[in-house]
Amino acid sequence: MDKSLFKHKIEHTVRFHEVDMMSVVNNAVYFNYFEDARIAYVRDLKKLYNMQELLENGSWFIMAHNECDYIEPAMMDDELIIHTRVPFVKNSSFGFEHIVENKKSCKIIAKGGGVVVHINFATNKSIPLPEEFYTALQDFEAEVKILRKTPQS
Amino acid sequence: MDKSLFKHKIEHTVRFHEVDMMSVVNNAVYFNYFEDARIAYVRDLKKLYNMQELLENGSWFIMAHNECDYIEPAMMDDELIIHTRVPFVKNSSFGFEHIVENKKSCKIIAKGGGVVVHINFATNKSIPLPEEFYTALQDFEAEVKILRKTPQS
Amino acid sequence: MDKSLFKHKIEHTVRFHEVDMMSVVNNAVYFNYFEDARIAYVRDLKKLYNMQELLENGSWFIMAHNECDYIEPAMMDDELIIHTRVPFVKNSSFGFEHIVENKKSCKIIAKGGGVVVHINFATNKSIPLPEEFYTALQDFEAEVKILRKTPQS
Amino acid sequence: MDKSLFKHKIEHTVRFHEVDMMSVVNNAVYFNYFEDARIAYVRDLKKLYNMQELLENGSWFIMAHNECDYIEPAMMDDELIIHTRVPFVKNSSFGFEHIVENKKSCKIIAKGGGVVVHINFATNKSIPLPEEFYTALQDFEAEVKILRKTPQS
Repeated sequence: MDKSLFKHKIEHTVRFHEVDMMSVVNNAVYFNYFEDARIAYVRDLKKLYNMQELLENGSWFIMAHNECDYIEPAMMDDELIIHTRVPFVKNSSFGFEHIVENKKSCKIIAKGGGVVVHINFATNKSIPLPEEFYTALQDFEAEVKILRKTPQS
Repeated sequence: MDKSLFKHKIEHTVRFHEVDMMSVVNNAVYFNYFEDARIAYVRDLKKLYNMQELLENGSWFIMAHNECDYIEPAMMDDELIIHTRVPFVKNSSFGFEHIVENKKSCKIIAKGGGVVVHINFATNKSIPLPEEFYTALQDFEAEVKILRKTPQS
Repeated sequence: MDKSLFKHKIEHTVRFHEVDMMSVVNNAVYFNYFEDARIAYVRDLKKLYNMQELLENGSWFIMAHNECDYIEPAMMDDELIIHTRVPFVKNSSFGFEHIVENKKSCKIIAKGGGVVVHINFATNKSIPLPEEFYTALQDFEAEVKILRKTPQS
Repeated sequence: MDKSLFKHKIEHTVRFHEVDMMSVVNNAVYFNYFEDARIAYVRDLKKLYNMQELLENGSWFIMAHNECDYIEPAMMDDELIIHTRVPFVKNSSFGFEHIVENKKSCKIIAKGGGVVVHINFATNKSIPLPEEFYTALQDFEAEVKILRKTPQS
């Protein structure tokens, strides 16, 4: 993962209850960080591009896949930056990539990502992402692969 | 993942605080389940094979990698079985694989796994796994790849 | 709190992620235990007395108060018993009391309790508890104070 | 609780995983907020008064009591202010009080508090609080009851 490709970030200071018996942030807690980052990313993108359809009228995202590589430990009170990008988008799903960095030492703490699926909350079926989302990603991201099988014409 | 290869399991009933706003087990909670499963696996293997060296004298495991594929949602009060196996073991690290199954419906809820590294807790350096661990895994697991570069002779 | 008055219990084994940097169960986690105990208590009572109205048709419980006294620390893998009773019931609210006991040592780990309010989920207003709940509590509990201001006659 | 007496505050934005099935911050999560507030309070006081002895050389705080009154629900993304004060200090223990306020609506969301005991971490025995802590509290707090049985002369 090339950090220069990441255009979105949130910051988080490690809280006491996130740290385990070994005095480091518990491995599962990184997925809370990724979730916070995803939610902030979508909210910020929605605002920036004035999106009207995304996550409206019962459209929702669910996780299909999650992963994390742990590189350095994070400790209580560490200030972390969670960098986020969307590397690809398909018809009704897209990927997230994250780099967790220690703000002070600039060390990379963890890398990870996930895949989310766009569904109709009532039917629980995957539905196509709105056109405005592709447009926004192509403008916002330094590099994003559009992998739609049947692009709207 | 072939469920017949999994020889270890724990059971867990979904608790209210594990479920999120969408009424399903939050994606990060699965990594708590995997952690519980790993700890139970190692504790049970240690007991079964009367291991004397593993996790003694400052030896410890840390996570290097974690991942999960979400297949079906799990709900409050669902009884889950977390099946666990060790698919490979190297000089100082090894893998875990998990299948999360709904006990009642027998549906596969999630699949995932991780890689742990055997370290000396004081020095934080990776150290070789004890011989007894390879012996135990070869006996316990239906199928485990021994990937040591320099096997003790 | 007199342990002999407690007629309901659940059991729980302390999980790795519940333990904090000091190697003891984090103070907030006891309120997850109390929640599990409350939910199990109401579910078991409902079943035992074949209650038809409680928690049906949009009726719900919300917490009004929570408290805990910490007496002895609980550690990873400790088997805990959470004893629960309802000490009083009013028109639309009632109390819970809990004793957390170490199953092996029989030491009292913590004592606590809470007050829940019976509401209509749609209106978010408190509503009277159904008659069947008072009847069940009077039969099930060793000692319960009925504090209804306007008892049905 | 009179809000004008509270001289310390932290801010927190409600995260997705803190919210439960009812779309409100789960009751146990408030005790994480109180913990964050306590830790920030002590750290800030230590810095402000250049304290040299508090929480040094194996001295530590453990919770003896915790409580919370829930007044209004808090939702995902709500910005909360957690106000904190120390209402009393004894020989080796002291109290905390908290008010949780919605930053935007200024509504009081919850009130609570706790009692912490100053211990020697190695012996797990309560030990007197250092003189500098009393001096700092008397200067910092608008109102604090000094309840030492045997004040140093």
